[in-house]
Amino acid sequence: MTIREIRVTPVAFRDPPLLNAAGVHEPWALRTIVEVVTDEGLTGLGETYGDLGHLGKVRECAKSLIGLDVHDMNTMYARIGAIVGGVVSDLHGLTGAATKEKSVDRVFAAFEVACLDIRGKAAGVPVVDLLGGKARDAVPYSAYLFYKWAGHPGEEPDRFGAALDEAGIVEQAALLIKEYGFQSIKLKGGVFPPDQEIAAIKALREAFPGMPLRLDPNAVWSVETSIRVGRELEGTLQYLEDPTAEISGMSEVAAAVPMPLATNMCVVTPEHLPPAIASRAIGVLLLDHHYWGGLVRSSHIATLCDTFGLSLSMHSNSHLGISLAAMTHLAAATPNLTFACDTHTPWQDGQDVVVPGSLRFVDGAVPVPAGPGLGVELDRDALARMNEQYEKCGIVARDDTTYMQRFEPGFTARKPRW
Amino acid sequence: MTIREIRVTPVAFRDPPLLNAAGVHEPWALRTIVEVVTDEGLTGLGETYGDLGHLGKVRECAKSLIGLDVHDMNTMYARIGAIVGGVVSDLHGLTGAATKEKSVDRVFAAFEVACLDIRGKAAGVPVVDLLGGKARDAVPYSAYLFYKWAGHPGEEPDRFGAALDEAGIVEQAALLIKEYGFQSIKLKGGVFPPDQEIAAIKALREAFPGMPLRLDPNAVWSVETSIRVGRELEGTLQYLEDPTAEISGMSEVAAAVPMPLATNMCVVTPEHLPPAIASRAIGVLLLDHHYWGGLVRSSHIATLCDTFGLSLSMHSNSHLGISLAAMTHLAAATPNLTFACDTHTPWQDGQDVVVPGSLRFVDGAVPVPAGPGLGVELDRDALARMNEQYEKCGIVARDDTTYMQRFEPGFTARKPRW
Repeated sequence: MTIREIRVTPVAFRDPPLLNAAGVHEPWALRTIVEVVTDEGLTGLGETYGDLGHLGKVRECAKSLIGLDVHDMNTMYARIGAIVGGVVSDLHGLTGAATKEKSVDRVFAAFEVACLDIRGKAAGVPVVDLLGGKARDAVPYSAYLFYKWAGHPGEEPDRFGAALDEAGIVEQAALLIKEYGFQSIKLKGGVFPPDQEIAAIKALREAFPGMPLRLDPNAVWSVETSIRVGRELEGTLQYLEDPTAEISGMSEVAAAVPMPLATNMCVVTPEHLPPAIASRAIGVLLLDHHYWGGLVRSSHIATLCDTFGLSLSMHSNSHLGISLAAMTHLAAATPNLTFACDTHTPWQDGQDVVVPGSLRFVDGAVPVPAGPGLGVELDRDALARMNEQYEKCGIVARDDTTYMQRFEPGFTARKPRW
Repeated sequence: MTIREIRVTPVAFRDPPLLNAAGVHEPWALRTIVEVVTDEGLTGLGETYGDLGHLGKVRECAKSLIGLDVHDMNTMYARIGAIVGGVVSDLHGLTGAATKEKSVDRVFAAFEVACLDIRGKAAGVPVVDLLGGKARDAVPYSAYLFYKWAGHPGEEPDRFGAALDEAGIVEQAALLIKEYGFQSIKLKGGVFPPDQEIAAIKALREAFPGMPLRLDPNAVWSVETSIRVGRELEGTLQYLEDPTAEISGMSEVAAAVPMPLATNMCVVTPEHLPPAIASRAIGVLLLDHHYWGGLVRSSHIATLCDTFGLSLSMHSNSHLGISLAAMTHLAAATPNLTFACDTHTPWQDGQDVVVPGSLRFVDGAVPVPAGPGLGVELDRDALARMNEQYEKCGIVARDDTTYMQRFEPGFTARKPRW
């Protein structure tokens, strides 16, 4: 099954004003949709970041893959490595340091997923079966809460409304749980002074007793603040995610707080694992196939984590249905991925490039799509519409900080902030 | 592709009197051949140990796998885990400590390889393609030298003749290199006092300048002896394999000798990796899919080793062509498996259960079989003949020590011996 053609299409979709340590989501989120076509006419889908520098690398690498067999991942990885070569600057500061390996993994992943989609279609099996088969039939996701404005400045409020205090966060949680059935909750923090976010977690605990809770301030706290918050939230958090920056800082915090620390920032590429493990910096790794080099490499990392006693959850950026399908197949095939995964799906609120129907939430979990490959079908009209949105929206790279500074000129994304 | 039937056939084949720390190879070596048949009539081949206890577990587990899909490795692993349950005693003392996990991995591997064979056949691709594609077109193996008697006591000398001193070892190396084109050499040691084996290595160095050399005494030396030998062989060995027992002992030796240490004894299951890495006990892991849980799990372990800076080679027990094919597909798909692999193939001297032709040595390397799946075909006549040999040979479990004691009543396999 030789790759005959690869189509690379950037898309944009509406994104609510979600607040985080780097600023606030812009009105449009970007993704790149990859379609790999074989000489038999089979098409595989991949989805990756939409930032212009990354898009350029994806396009450049796509050309070099024509003529490769869809099984030949080692050659594909080597070719992409030769092209990506140096260090690509980090996309937006929320997924940790940039490295050459991470940049290669990030470009490779979209093609790898598309090739697995093709292999699954050719074999008549879902991608989960190419990854070892189902360890679970449905993959639980968490309610991913954000502090947010009522709407983008100058626009009408969106249907989610404002969430700028405990009451707003609890209300948001109730809405997402009602609509999706989520059974665990993650709050994106790092937005307000820590005491306010502690109060939000306590309000969530009161409103949803027994529901696992997580807090992720995106490494915007000092070691001291992280320890203070961790201790104040004893017995309340399932894990505390990236309270502070760097493996060394996380290690100090981990030794002093009662709950495990999780990360998708200080351990984002294989070379970070040995020092993180040696210094006991983390208890939970948030896998993300988009930058861990695709689904198969992520499954290798899952075995490594199991071997060293690290638990697994899954990280999410704003994404569409191709990624949700890929994440679900991977998580379903990974026995030791036992924490509910993150997803931004609710915030896309039905916008998608895939035909509706094959992805749904049942009690907060996505049943593994049963169709061959990823089990999702590209909606060409939606793709064209979202590509048009990309061309018109004027955004070419995610920049939460500059957008925030338009409304709060004094805002900086400095770390630690507290 | 549902598993409809599994045939499990023990076989025996002639084995020369190869000496090692545990004693001497008996006249017959045992293996178990596994044939997995799907409801479409596709057949996949696997090969594993032939010892009676293991054979019983394989047979028992085989029944529990009927009805499973050949992709459903997670369920297969869980079912085998439920059956194997406790600790299976170690097979023969040369591949390290027994653990429950290792026992499950050991039973699982034969079925996993057979299922990959089926999946490759169904997709029309070689197994290497299911593991990431070729990182190399042919897999280099080493000349695996053994001290040996001229023949089994009471029998005519075999064609390899005796090798009981430096001259015999050099002659044996010359023969294997002439017939197979090997470009690196491993000497199984632990048979004679260390100074004699040092002399053999030095004789090999002189006879084959520039050829990478390895020595493997199967952990029969004390830490002190290991350090002395390691220092005396500075500049001569590519790596020193299992000079002494246990991770702690290997760690002491590793800190004091100039070459990397390799193992297939102190690190034989995932749980051994964290302490071995933390104590810098080894530089090279000898993978063996037969006890690391099959080809895919071995590839996960390869990534782990790469992440932690461990190099890879491959271990071998007496085996037939199904295993040689599986080892070759795995090694070809593993970019960081850069040392020549071990194989006992020359000692089987043409005896096989697979139809000749698809496996050959070119300059000491086996080109990856090009056919679908493993690329080897079962020779039913040979299987029947070798099964008959199994029934008649009177050996049901490998026991190099007792066989040796028949001729040297005072022999013990105590460790350390020197």
